[in-house]
Amino acid sequence: MNPFFVPLVGQVTEGGMAQAEAVEKALSSHLFEIFILVLATQVVGWIFQKIKQPVVIGELLAGVIVGPALLGWVVEGSLLEFIAELGAIFLLFMVGLETRMHDILKVGKEAFIVAVVGAILPFFGGYYFGLYIGFNQVASLFLGAALVATSVGITARVMQELEVLSRPYSRIILGAAVIDDIEGLIVLAIVSGIATTGAVETAGIVRLVLISFAFVGAAMALVPFVRRIPLERLPFQSPLGVAIAFGMGMATLASFIGLAPIVGAFMAGMVMAELREEYELEPPIHAIESFLAPIFFAYMGVQLDLAALTSREVLIAGVVISLIAIAGKLVSMFGALSQGLRQALVVGVGMVPRGEVGLIVASIGLSAGAVDEKEFAIVIFMVVVTTIIAPLSLRPLIAWADPEVPLTEETA
Amino acid sequence: MNPFFVPLVGQVTEGGMAQAEAVEKALSSHLFEIFILVLATQVVGWIFQKIKQPVVIGELLAGVIVGPALLGWVVEGSLLEFIAELGAIFLLFMVGLETRMHDILKVGKEAFIVAVVGAILPFFGGYYFGLYIGFNQVASLFLGAALVATSVGITARVMQELEVLSRPYSRIILGAAVIDDIEGLIVLAIVSGIATTGAVETAGIVRLVLISFAFVGAAMALVPFVRRIPLERLPFQSPLGVAIAFGMGMATLASFIGLAPIVGAFMAGMVMAELREEYELEPPIHAIESFLAPIFFAYMGVQLDLAALTSREVLIAGVVISLIAIAGKLVSMFGALSQGLRQALVVGVGMVPRGEVGLIVASIGLSAGAVDEKEFAIVIFMVVVTTIIAPLSLRPLIAWADPEVPLTEETA
Repeated sequence: MNPFFVPLVGQVTEGGMAQAEAVEKALSSHLFEIFILVLATQVVGWIFQKIKQPVVIGELLAGVIVGPALLGWVVEGSLLEFIAELGAIFLLFMVGLETRMHDILKVGKEAFIVAVVGAILPFFGGYYFGLYIGFNQVASLFLGAALVATSVGITARVMQELEVLSRPYSRIILGAAVIDDIEGLIVLAIVSGIATTGAVETAGIVRLVLISFAFVGAAMALVPFVRRIPLERLPFQSPLGVAIAFGMGMATLASFIGLAPIVGAFMAGMVMAELREEYELEPPIHAIESFLAPIFFAYMGVQLDLAALTSREVLIAGVVISLIAIAGKLVSMFGALSQGLRQALVVGVGMVPRGEVGLIVASIGLSAGAVDEKEFAIVIFMVVVTTIIAPLSLRPLIAWADPEVPLTEETA
Repeated sequence: MNPFFVPLVGQVTEGGMAQAEAVEKALSSHLFEIFILVLATQVVGWIFQKIKQPVVIGELLAGVIVGPALLGWVVEGSLLEFIAELGAIFLLFMVGLETRMHDILKVGKEAFIVAVVGAILPFFGGYYFGLYIGFNQVASLFLGAALVATSVGITARVMQELEVLSRPYSRIILGAAVIDDIEGLIVLAIVSGIATTGAVETAGIVRLVLISFAFVGAAMALVPFVRRIPLERLPFQSPLGVAIAFGMGMATLASFIGLAPIVGAFMAGMVMAELREEYELEPPIHAIESFLAPIFFAYMGVQLDLAALTSREVLIAGVVISLIAIAGKLVSMFGALSQGLRQALVVGVGMVPRGEVGLIVASIGLSAGAVDEKEFAIVIFMVVVTTIIAPLSLRPLIAWADPEVPLTEETA
């Protein structure tokens, strides 16, 4: 069935083509949803530009407004989720494109410490707090796991808005986020293993660790060779075509080996960064990103169920677990103290958002029966708080820590 | 459920999270499909560049190769269909952006004659041929209806590749295609009405005609005002944001009133054409189009079921109906004789492809029970032939009819 030609058959005839109509209707309504998300992110984003607040929060809020929590014009669904995923992929591809590998390697030690400390503290904090408030052991493990991995998308967008992606603190955050994602993956694998088998399967975990490091290492090893490749002589329609195919391919490969697709997209972007000036790859990739990435942020808003957050019990536990989530990442800033206290604080705050990574951990726990609805709502609360608080505080914080970035700077 | 973090849980644990996994798996496989479509269209498109053939045919062929007909790596599905639809929307938005309304109006009379003749002849040709080979009356009506509307996407892409979108013959094709789509819609509404109620409901058809003309008229009436709008002062993040929101909004509106979304996108592009230079809208829209439009063409190839076309009966009827489809549009070229015989021939051939419009008519007939599998396969055959033959012949034809376009021109 094909939507390019959507007749008013429903008004002219009386049934007989119910199936065709149902498909047409669903497709038109997805078109409507994309339109609403584009429109809402543009308008609310503009308001946030005017009041000098992070546009990404405006886009998230736009999703809350048009989503089930308020207007109900846009609902959760696998199609929108995929478009949102493409948005996240192009966002991280673009961030990678603006990142030079040797700049990340320069801060490799700092990034590693930040990532490790920022994973261990929140995990055990969450685990013991879960036990303390009466979660069973498996649910407590999931709670801890949901606190591990940073959702770098939101922080990356704020850094992009402020044009500070090339600063050392930004590089530490990006490097730590890549390591973080691998850690989060391993923790989730272990916790899932315990939840379903009651034991840890060492072989699976070792394989996972090896594959992850091999993937990131292989991508980094590509960089010196890429510089010498004349893109226009490859069997592709255009250099932009090479870039898009490579980005999508690395995202797919990452998901096949069990990593987040956005990690693959980021690594692909970092590889292509070596060629971005020669082939003017940034403007077209930025154009695609500027269409799709706001849909990603808005979709995170669409997924927020405000109603589930109104129970007093959930609220109190949510506040405490949010504090643990924030504190755990803030302490990890000591790994970045070489950059001075202020910029180390930027790193700590930049690692706070859990976003979609926390959501997926909680969802897996929920569908495995390891986490109940109430425990799920607590994780959602934490995700909302950490995802909103980081960009709100990052902007003034960066202005304070980095004198070259005025707070009142106009962003486009 | 969220795909940003796809763990190897399947390898570490044993079930318990079947649902979550199923969703993850579907989403990763869609990512794989998009990657394969990007890669295949890039590589096959490059081959077609090298052998000086229309890239769009290469992209269509890429879809056939990776689709169920051959490799089976990409299959039909509502998600890919929607991405393909977005591709068609951005393609026609881009084509609209390169079209000035007063240029279309200059050739309005020619476009109207081409559209009307090119709808009447194929419709009655298809209807009577259907009766002749033993289709019942309703199936014959559907056969006729499937022959009415041109699929302008393929022709538009060839004209874009050759950079002849501003020539009078291109404008006649674009103008006629908009009228054509409205005609096709009305014919389908009438035929569907007869199929299900056995009678024509006049009120519904009149309303449909009025709404269609009001939509196109309203969009055209916007043009003189648009020139005076300072986009940067609208409550949108950026002028590009205004353009994308307007394009998606018009596509959605078109689908709501029963027109094809691509008609809305084309009208939106034509309105924004008045501002495209001032705000440099073309490069970013072109970037988005260059990611999504090849997916549209490849998806048309994915949908082609080569196996259904092997019956001798279907082949013979398919060849005859294809000849009727081609002849009907070729005769309509007399409406464009003011441009000389050669360029009128370009118009006739440019109107030949039926593409997705023919497919949707056949699908509606099939799901309404008015058309059987064999009759459906005949329409598919016609769609394949008309969709492939037009761009293959258009390229040398334009080179012959328009001396400013050398046949060997390199396209990007």
